[in-house]
Amino acid sequence: MSATDTDNSTKGAYVTGGAEFARDTNYITTRITEDGRDGFPVEPDRYRLIVARACPWANRAIIVRRLLGLEPVLSMGMTGPTHDKRSWTFDLDPGGVDPVLGIERLQEAYFKRDPEYPRGITVPAMVEVATGKVVTNDYRQMTLDLSTEWTRFHREGAPDLYPEHLRNEIDEVAHRNYTEVNNGVYRCGFAGSQESYESAYDRLFTRLDWLTERLSTRRYLVGDSITQADVFLFTTLARFDPVYHGHFKANRSKLSEMPVLWAYARDLFQTPGFGDTTDFVQIKKHYYVVHTDINPTQIVPAGPDLTNWWEPHHREELGGRPFGDGTPPGPPVPSEVVPDGHGAPRP
Amino acid sequence: MSATDTDNSTKGAYVTGGAEFARDTNYITTRITEDGRDGFPVEPDRYRLIVARACPWANRAIIVRRLLGLEPVLSMGMTGPTHDKRSWTFDLDPGGVDPVLGIERLQEAYFKRDPEYPRGITVPAMVEVATGKVVTNDYRQMTLDLSTEWTRFHREGAPDLYPEHLRNEIDEVAHRNYTEVNNGVYRCGFAGSQESYESAYDRLFTRLDWLTERLSTRRYLVGDSITQADVFLFTTLARFDPVYHGHFKANRSKLSEMPVLWAYARDLFQTPGFGDTTDFVQIKKHYYVVHTDINPTQIVPAGPDLTNWWEPHHREELGGRPFGDGTPPGPPVPSEVVPDGHGAPRP
Repeated sequence: MSATDTDNSTKGAYVTGGAEFARDTNYITTRITEDGRDGFPVEPDRYRLIVARACPWANRAIIVRRLLGLEPVLSMGMTGPTHDKRSWTFDLDPGGVDPVLGIERLQEAYFKRDPEYPRGITVPAMVEVATGKVVTNDYRQMTLDLSTEWTRFHREGAPDLYPEHLRNEIDEVAHRNYTEVNNGVYRCGFAGSQESYESAYDRLFTRLDWLTERLSTRRYLVGDSITQADVFLFTTLARFDPVYHGHFKANRSKLSEMPVLWAYARDLFQTPGFGDTTDFVQIKKHYYVVHTDINPTQIVPAGPDLTNWWEPHHREELGGRPFGDGTPPGPPVPSEVVPDGHGAPRP
Repeated sequence: MSATDTDNSTKGAYVTGGAEFARDTNYITTRITEDGRDGFPVEPDRYRLIVARACPWANRAIIVRRLLGLEPVLSMGMTGPTHDKRSWTFDLDPGGVDPVLGIERLQEAYFKRDPEYPRGITVPAMVEVATGKVVTNDYRQMTLDLSTEWTRFHREGAPDLYPEHLRNEIDEVAHRNYTEVNNGVYRCGFAGSQESYESAYDRLFTRLDWLTERLSTRRYLVGDSITQADVFLFTTLARFDPVYHGHFKANRSKLSEMPVLWAYARDLFQTPGFGDTTDFVQIKKHYYVVHTDINPTQIVPAGPDLTNWWEPHHREELGGRPFGDGTPPGPPVPSEVVPDGHGAPRP
């Protein structure tokens, strides 16, 4: 609802002098559903999920796809960590071309959908392979739909990340986390005035204190197993110390100085699907290189030390069953393993 | 020896693309001595020490003057925390004029000394009150001279911060601390290339690890009492988490995550003369507002939480006598008390 651009998109300047950061939340809302009511039924090999490992919104989809075991029916293409004003690019692929879609820039898939597509080119995006058109870039709905519409193709033992009887609570917790934390860190970093920065900072840490309180007696955010709410929060927490603390000035304290949240984040990180989809090298490179209006030198910090992600978290003492009646996913498929040196090194 | 500018000075851009940061270390080396061999003998009320609380090099002189009790014979003028390309200014004083020197900009005192003074206008500076001329801005020698040349005017019980038999060791430790840490943080922050940044980062943390080792079994850097070496290191450590960690990307870890150095810094902070001369509001404002080439928005972070400066440090278990055969200074003179809300709040 605003001309200001989002961070998973590409349209340009991030800070508007004197103004609060306002995220453009107009997405292509077409859904891929079991019944195909928007013209796009769930179907093996019909779609390709395009992500950037760097992006917290895309990282949500990466995690959920992996937890549910959708790799055999939904392929994944990965852009590089940086982009220019026009588009995310497939610069990590041989020849700089996505091997399935045959394009260099994700923008091409948006333009196939709408030759005059006027908004930022965002990840994650679901692209129909045969037509090369973006079906949807609505990261929240897309990720929920992997849970609720793709059930026929879930692996055996896939967890229920969005159980029906908990959906209201998940939505409520996740919505407030979104406004105050997931998007709140961006509001800190892209604030155009001291006043809007301080207001964002206060809101962010007020909510983090609330989360500390909530998570001090329960292992997961809602219910006693991992849900979408945990996935949504995790991708922000994983970026907190490497990026948001310094680059976005979300610096009352590091995540590693908030004991409850830090143990909660480590618990998830050490759970298959979370830490093994987190690429700290790409994460840091993305933010520090792309946001030239807050980091004009584009120098990427060498810190922080990440070995502490593997420290014991003791969260199992709170009970909970990470995958409910389900099981953890197996190891990542070889082509999707986070490269050596990009994860948190085991001490 | 370089056209690149220092941070306690005012000449302009801080980052030179592609290059390492090189500090201009050409100072006005005239000395104020007991024997007056440079024409400027030690004398009560003859000089005025001009400082900015924000500046780590000036903060050294503030601490030493206070530890030695030189307030009655050497007055102190304080500029505001920020400056433009021309000069530090007396914007905290009524009417924006230093009440003793009668000038608005410190530059005027430099131009009285040399109408074509070509270098940055730096603090600390010693100004001769009668002529209004800068005598010296050589922060290191000036601060040592307070210890060794102004002895006739030291308070009763003033500590010996530069004992003769330890001078070689103090100089050696302090010199390496200077190149790797005090100046090393600037080399991180003003690096003009990824390579020069990473080299500065490695050197910085290599030395901090060396300091951790050294300070794990001894309370102070040299001997068993506070010396100039401790003062010199302290003013950098005090700025580490509020500024250097985020703004300068010195972010392997926070000071508060390096237990030995953090306890050492808290020990000094809680010693009269150190914490009570540290103004975190001015410190943060200085760096984040002045360095527009690394923080173009000029937004000043609200964090970090500073209450932890008052946590027990247990360093007395290592022995040591903070002031040797001397005594701590009394409370600061009322006009020099750090304003309410600018220090580390007691928990």
